[in-house]
Amino acid sequence: MKIISNPGEQKWAKLTGRPKTNQTKLMDTVNKIFYDIHKKGDRAVKKYSRQFDGFDNDTFLVDNETIQAAASGLSEQLKQAIGLAKANIGKFHLSQQLTEAKTETSPGVMCWREARPIERIGIYVPGGSAPLFSTVLMLAVPARIAGCKEIVLCTPPDKDGNIHPAILYAAQTAGVTQLFAVGGIQAIAAMAFGTETIPKVDKIFGPGNQYVMAAKHAAQYYGTAIDMPAGPSEVLVIADETCRPSFVAADLLSQAEHGPDSQVIFLSNNKKILKEVNKELTLQLDNLPRKEIAEQALKNSKAIFFNDIATCISFSNRYAPEHLILAVENPVLRSREVTNAGSVFLGNYSCESAGDYASGTNHTLPTGGNAKVYSGVSLDSFVKKITFQQLNEEGISAIGPAVEIMAETETLYAHKNAMTLRLGDVAGKYLSATSTDQTEKE
Amino acid sequence: MKIISNPGEQKWAKLTGRPKTNQTKLMDTVNKIFYDIHKKGDRAVKKYSRQFDGFDNDTFLVDNETIQAAASGLSEQLKQAIGLAKANIGKFHLSQQLTEAKTETSPGVMCWREARPIERIGIYVPGGSAPLFSTVLMLAVPARIAGCKEIVLCTPPDKDGNIHPAILYAAQTAGVTQLFAVGGIQAIAAMAFGTETIPKVDKIFGPGNQYVMAAKHAAQYYGTAIDMPAGPSEVLVIADETCRPSFVAADLLSQAEHGPDSQVIFLSNNKKILKEVNKELTLQLDNLPRKEIAEQALKNSKAIFFNDIATCISFSNRYAPEHLILAVENPVLRSREVTNAGSVFLGNYSCESAGDYASGTNHTLPTGGNAKVYSGVSLDSFVKKITFQQLNEEGISAIGPAVEIMAETETLYAHKNAMTLRLGDVAGKYLSATSTDQTEKE
Repeated sequence: MKIISNPGEQKWAKLTGRPKTNQTKLMDTVNKIFYDIHKKGDRAVKKYSRQFDGFDNDTFLVDNETIQAAASGLSEQLKQAIGLAKANIGKFHLSQQLTEAKTETSPGVMCWREARPIERIGIYVPGGSAPLFSTVLMLAVPARIAGCKEIVLCTPPDKDGNIHPAILYAAQTAGVTQLFAVGGIQAIAAMAFGTETIPKVDKIFGPGNQYVMAAKHAAQYYGTAIDMPAGPSEVLVIADETCRPSFVAADLLSQAEHGPDSQVIFLSNNKKILKEVNKELTLQLDNLPRKEIAEQALKNSKAIFFNDIATCISFSNRYAPEHLILAVENPVLRSREVTNAGSVFLGNYSCESAGDYASGTNHTLPTGGNAKVYSGVSLDSFVKKITFQQLNEEGISAIGPAVEIMAETETLYAHKNAMTLRLGDVAGKYLSATSTDQTEKE
Repeated sequence: MKIISNPGEQKWAKLTGRPKTNQTKLMDTVNKIFYDIHKKGDRAVKKYSRQFDGFDNDTFLVDNETIQAAASGLSEQLKQAIGLAKANIGKFHLSQQLTEAKTETSPGVMCWREARPIERIGIYVPGGSAPLFSTVLMLAVPARIAGCKEIVLCTPPDKDGNIHPAILYAAQTAGVTQLFAVGGIQAIAAMAFGTETIPKVDKIFGPGNQYVMAAKHAAQYYGTAIDMPAGPSEVLVIADETCRPSFVAADLLSQAEHGPDSQVIFLSNNKKILKEVNKELTLQLDNLPRKEIAEQALKNSKAIFFNDIATCISFSNRYAPEHLILAVENPVLRSREVTNAGSVFLGNYSCESAGDYASGTNHTLPTGGNAKVYSGVSLDSFVKKITFQQLNEEGISAIGPAVEIMAETETLYAHKNAMTLRLGDVAGKYLSATSTDQTEKE
């Protein structure tokens, strides 16, 4: 990695920028496929599956027998690992299930929120070289905890129509309700509109290449929610003299091996560490099966020296990385300065791959600077929170006159009248109660 | 309102449908304006302000003097009402500020979430006949509580370049940091890209007509987050024999007066109540300044008789109303059956206008069936939640082997290696500790 030394703040905008992708042409393709699938349903899905994936089965639905059989193709060790990951993801997402107390904002005015599951969710799991069964766990486990009724999964099959057994096993163990061998734009369109066999869902989750990303954009435009805008994966590592250069290099490479467009940034306040990490990168790179991909990614990467860790964190906040590793002294204390990041890994033993698979945190995280605004996927992503309010007579008296004058100022007289009628009713009750009292006294 | 009796479930899809709007042509206009403002900044904003709003000032920025002066144009009573509304909105949104406990998912693996404010938010307040200063409070008060640094507000001025003093006063009291007299598509584009005078924001909030809605869609596409997709306002009222027909009619009318495209639905298990409410509607309608608008809205509205309240709620869940009023016996108990709604008003004294202005709940809510997926605006809308994790030696031993085999199965060997190095380190420490023990024993 090329080392940049102490770049001034005027250079940060450029250094924290991401490569731009032009989606305009892509959107034309996406819109055409969406239109076709909206009109022709399964028939169009089949056409595009044949065209893009060379897949020509009669049905997309993967039957239960096939899913059940997947377990026998996996080692006991892997099944146990999946079990542990599932348990930890479950524990952490369950901890996000909070009941909020009711708040009495004015006397007699009770307000509160309650969560309700989103009924039907769709999960997209990309195909390609790596069978991302961990993504199945990251999305289906919290969906199940949230109480989603339908958990639909689409993933592209290989040329023979097969899906990796680890994906099938993870889907089964995590509670996916229907699984379809469909990929790409056509999978997203099918879940957005619904077809004869693939159900329409309310919200679509999951990663994907630029086609899938563009398709999720379109799904959102046509009225189906999505988890978040997505892009190439990123890591930013901040390390000081307490770090382990071999660990840092391994973490940078785990990001770089994702794809040639992966974003890798390394910041340090120690020039020796920067050099040692670079040396370690060269050593470790040689032993990687995905060496070529990682090498390409590293070419676009940056190693930057800043005078102090505080400046490293300021730069990181400007960049807003998907993953941030703080391999520094007192990492928890330091983490308070972090304002923008998807997920933060604290200290030398907290490697990104821990969170990618089994620590329990979600690995579906905002990329491309979206961490400035978006949270990663959590239990909240699978529910909506409904507000409730209940006013009694006292509540009407407490806020009624304020509501009246505000509505009147906004020239919304029916809004005012709805309160005036209730105020009149409460006053009437009070008067009649008073007159009853008087009668009794007389 | 026309009364429909006991429609079968096969008719619900049509009955719960919303009028479709064709945005295609609109999007062309929006894209053109976005392109112009991205290229030419303020100059283009001025051009469109002149063209659409007839507004031709030198600057959009409303100066502090003008904002400060607004207070003197308002009655004490209104200022107190705004103070009460602000306090209640503050209390309820502050109650949403929860600190989550850390979770130890496996021994030595700690995971938790922390909220951080979104730095720069933009608020759009529509112009037109009604000065919606309540929307200013609903968006700026929680933004301030969340800790957003920049709270930018855009609202269209009248032909003379003036903004209603209630909007200025609400903005000042709620903590808006910069206020611009700009409306429509050009305001949204300016906040999405930033111009010489109007800052770029990270997320845009607020209601608006179909132009503003389409512009928010575009903003999202070009990388600025939005609160939620929006559409015409809606209320669904469910009432049984314990309701007050005059209250119900007033609530239906408060929705109907918003605009001719407002959606109003009334469900009851009692035919007498249906008739009485209809009678009350006619009576109250006559006294409304916005009678014509409300009449038009009521023409598209539906009153439906169902045999029981449970079916009314099922229908409502399918419709997923923005506002749901439960004017029924035991409303809190009944509310447990509600699965899809933006905000729920319980019992005869909980009118929608209470929540629109002063009870403390947010009035920025999902419309058009989006309540199936989206929550209304809350404190969560102004923050993102970052996950943190910290593993120690024990944590590495607990989940390390699982991470290794999962990474290997996904063919991500650098991911595996990042964990293998740490496992080796921990084993080395353990071994050296053991060998020291042995030396001591010898």
